[in-house]
Amino acid sequence: MATTPKWIMVGGEGPESYNQNSSYQRALLEAAKEKMSEAIKAKLSLDLIYDRFSVADFGCASGPNTFVAVQNIIDAVEDKYRKETGQNPAENIEFQVLFNDFTTNDFNTLFQSLPAGRRYYSAGVPGSFFERVLPKESFHIGVINYAFHFTSKIPKGITDRDSPSWNRDMHCTGFNKAVKKAYLDQYSADAKILLDARADELVPGGLMLLFGSCLRDGVKMSETSKGIVLDAVGASLNDLAQQGVIEQDKVDSFSTPLYFAEESELKQIIEENGRFTIEAFEDIIHAKGEFTLDPKVLAVSCRASFGTFLSQHFGEQVFTKVFDLIEAKLRQEIPRLLNAKPGMQYLIVLRKKN
Amino acid sequence: MATTPKWIMVGGEGPESYNQNSSYQRALLEAAKEKMSEAIKAKLSLDLIYDRFSVADFGCASGPNTFVAVQNIIDAVEDKYRKETGQNPAENIEFQVLFNDFTTNDFNTLFQSLPAGRRYYSAGVPGSFFERVLPKESFHIGVINYAFHFTSKIPKGITDRDSPSWNRDMHCTGFNKAVKKAYLDQYSADAKILLDARADELVPGGLMLLFGSCLRDGVKMSETSKGIVLDAVGASLNDLAQQGVIEQDKVDSFSTPLYFAEESELKQIIEENGRFTIEAFEDIIHAKGEFTLDPKVLAVSCRASFGTFLSQHFGEQVFTKVFDLIEAKLRQEIPRLLNAKPGMQYLIVLRKKN
Repeated sequence: MATTPKWIMVGGEGPESYNQNSSYQRALLEAAKEKMSEAIKAKLSLDLIYDRFSVADFGCASGPNTFVAVQNIIDAVEDKYRKETGQNPAENIEFQVLFNDFTTNDFNTLFQSLPAGRRYYSAGVPGSFFERVLPKESFHIGVINYAFHFTSKIPKGITDRDSPSWNRDMHCTGFNKAVKKAYLDQYSADAKILLDARADELVPGGLMLLFGSCLRDGVKMSETSKGIVLDAVGASLNDLAQQGVIEQDKVDSFSTPLYFAEESELKQIIEENGRFTIEAFEDIIHAKGEFTLDPKVLAVSCRASFGTFLSQHFGEQVFTKVFDLIEAKLRQEIPRLLNAKPGMQYLIVLRKKN
Repeated sequence: MATTPKWIMVGGEGPESYNQNSSYQRALLEAAKEKMSEAIKAKLSLDLIYDRFSVADFGCASGPNTFVAVQNIIDAVEDKYRKETGQNPAENIEFQVLFNDFTTNDFNTLFQSLPAGRRYYSAGVPGSFFERVLPKESFHIGVINYAFHFTSKIPKGITDRDSPSWNRDMHCTGFNKAVKKAYLDQYSADAKILLDARADELVPGGLMLLFGSCLRDGVKMSETSKGIVLDAVGASLNDLAQQGVIEQDKVDSFSTPLYFAEESELKQIIEENGRFTIEAFEDIIHAKGEFTLDPKVLAVSCRASFGTFLSQHFGEQVFTKVFDLIEAKLRQEIPRLLNAKPGMQYLIVLRKKN
């Protein structure tokens, strides 16, 4: 069933995985909620809000972030309904939330931590979001939170030293053209399959809300603060190989199933897929710095986002050693981080064509 | 959320929990499948079979029996569609299976053991089946396999020595009128709530298939082989109390949240509920003996069905001791078992009124 390895969704790439208390993160979450409410108000047809209204979260993990995300959506739908019909949604609409993630996701924990007092019916939907997981026209709004940058697998050749598209680095830095092409090709194919599956599952006129990170056009991943952090992880791995802690071969064959596309690449993929209209494509927030410069906080957030990939490939022990090195490594990178080019936190609103 | 203790569905009261290889059990399962196919053929409106067809199993546990049950239903629906329309269901119908059980059920195991090659989308629906767990008109056929004899709780007074409805025995034997009334009142209230919830969730004209055990009118539970086995468990508990292994108080306050109704009681409850027409109410099989007389097999099947209640109340250690005693105890009961009155394995087919 699963076309995608089980570790893909484990990391938690979202803003929630960074330091929750940073004012940047609070502002990001607030802004995301506000933009989403505006999008639902402006782009969701009132005709779709009657009887049963289903919301689906693709890549929900085991909570609790998914509960906040789906409640924000339901609040916005109820608000729109209340304002535009003058009626009480609680009397007329039954909400259902479909929580999707891999079959290996911890649905037991998800179900046992469902919020008390929620006003929706819940269902868990096991399966890779690169496939159909629901019958046709099953939901009205779908959301993907910081998971639209995954590929279904590491592209062919990337981890093979003898291949022209061998990737010396642990991510797609943007400097090697063959590597970039391999990642973009894989990502385009995967994203189109994902969009096709969601288009089949959505009711006509239904919305997909994509929250995530991408690159501004012409910016290379390694020029952003997130890329600099990933490069520091790669440098730490190479240090450990030189010290004989791990084999160089093991480092050479490591890469991640992630592709942070440029804004125009994302638009092109969605347009070529052809099943949706792009109703909005916007920056969630215009902040000066996307990341804190505190190496300790950066190391913790990096561990949350990418640790699973490392422990899968290298084992627990190496994983811990890498993160002992990374803070010192990042301390040296503060000048580069200060001059990093901004990435982009997007909200893309797609409407299924009728 | 849950109004029902978590252990209720754990036991596995179905025919599957007995010796799988007994010819009686094989015949029972075959007969159940055949009766169900006939019921679907005769009672399901062809108008309901189009686009999406949803099947819900209430009290599914963590598999694998639920997969057999829902596949049998889907096979029967496909067969009916194929024969009556001349069309291929695979081209026109998308099936969805909604697996319901308590929030504490092991859905992870359920999802990870979904059969390869299945032709349906899956979703897990957490929550007590004594409550609404799905939006209105969510499914077309629902099934409850050997779980319709549960009460949501042990009735008031039953476990209290000072109450007029105190139950000296571990189940409703049928001999004590106050005990019988307390159980029947609780069961009637619970079953009506359950039927109301399913009626809301079913599409108009949709079917509920109830497989289970009940009593023939005028037969007391302790006169059936299942009742004799339960009485033997009770006698073993009292022996252990006399030996000082457990406290008598602990035995006196033990009873099970089960009520095996008489056939006419079941009919009355369904009619008083009023949301369904009874389309069929039949014996699945007319076998001479419902149980094997082999005490070893009886002890094993009893352990599977009722062990969870015992270990919850008395702890693991006592639970094991009881089942060491039970085989010998049952050996003494063979004459009673030979003369036991027959119980009834039913299939009830209900159709939601329009």
